[in-house]
Amino acid sequence: MDSAELLNLLGNENRRRILRLLARKPCYVTEISEYLGVSPKAVIDHLRKLEEAGLIESRVDDQRRKYYFISQNLRLEVSVSPYGFGMKSAYPASQSLDVGSTCRHLKIEFNTDDASELADLAAELNTLEQLENELSMAQRWVQGRLADVMERLSDELGTDDTRLYADLLGTLADGPKTVDELTRRTEAPNPVVREALSELAERGIVGKDGGQWRLRD
Amino acid sequence: MDSAELLNLLGNENRRRILRLLARKPCYVTEISEYLGVSPKAVIDHLRKLEEAGLIESRVDDQRRKYYFISQNLRLEVSVSPYGFGMKSAYPASQSLDVGSTCRHLKIEFNTDDASELADLAAELNTLEQLENELSMAQRWVQGRLADVMERLSDELGTDDTRLYADLLGTLADGPKTVDELTRRTEAPNPVVREALSELAERGIVGKDGGQWRLRD
Repeated sequence: MDSAELLNLLGNENRRRILRLLARKPCYVTEISEYLGVSPKAVIDHLRKLEEAGLIESRVDDQRRKYYFISQNLRLEVSVSPYGFGMKSAYPASQSLDVGSTCRHLKIEFNTDDASELADLAAELNTLEQLENELSMAQRWVQGRLADVMERLSDELGTDDTRLYADLLGTLADGPKTVDELTRRTEAPNPVVREALSELAERGIVGKDGGQWRLRD
Repeated sequence: MDSAELLNLLGNENRRRILRLLARKPCYVTEISEYLGVSPKAVIDHLRKLEEAGLIESRVDDQRRKYYFISQNLRLEVSVSPYGFGMKSAYPASQSLDVGSTCRHLKIEFNTDDASELADLAAELNTLEQLENELSMAQRWVQGRLADVMERLSDELGTDDTRLYADLLGTLADGPKTVDELTRRTEAPNPVVREALSELAERGIVGKDGGQWRLRD
């Protein structure tokens, strides 16, 4: 599911209340309707939208009554700043992912022994929840630093379109690139990228070597 | 701003498009209206809502024309799983926050020297964006593990209300607690907590010592 579709669904308070309720336990339409104080017809309409998006599913119990439950595991992140509006939704990463060796800037200290006893599971749950909070805090810290760097870049560059210039400079900080690569990485139209590069070249910030642009020292 | 208010705002596609546009550069109403293909009246209505929420602000330029820009820096995280629906919105953490010493399970390897030159700023931007991606990936990994632990707890406990039982066990994994503390930490009604504790005690999972509950070995 893409982020826009997910935001459209979550933009409705009653749908959020239904998800909160189903996250506690599977429910019948009548239970949801009573809990929300909303007509069964309206509840069914919300459930249909959530089901079509694949967020929830329904089954029939022994008495042939239909009940609903959350079938999906997913995460949505949105960041808003003067220099960027980003949204990202994703399914949980596989457990076999080796975060330690995949990440260049991040180390997670977490005992990944499989817990078996209830007490171990409870302790693992606790640690994972702490880790989740720490990751959130780290991300807020990164966003603060990003906003600061963007502001300083904006001051230095004195342009209206700091985002594009910053993307170009950030991409070039990784190594020399052709115009085509830069166009692809910044997702900006080719003529706009060319114009920005000329502007940066005139100011002595970037230069062209062969077919590749690079940052000047 | 709380998460619910933010989701209500972001649940509208045209408002998301306005934010994406303003994140590139400050705009007049006419520019936004042309770009979106939406009447100025509708644009003004969206801008008013975004402004009331404090996400954007307006100023008047030399020609007395009003323009709008994003004034807020914030982050929203939503997670959906069969065992939980959580949302969290927050402002960026202060730069002076020492992530390294605050986090127990997380280490960030990042050179925090203040960059001055454009090339340094570009490199820092690049690193921060990588770090942001790594943190997102780590959070998806944590969510996957959390879902797995909850599922195993649910199997072991065989209850409908795994969330509450898991919260209780997770809290007790930190050390013995009184009923009052448990009620506060799990945010569940006192009688519900007492009933769950009795159930867990009958099954030999928790026990009471003096006034405090604790996990049994």
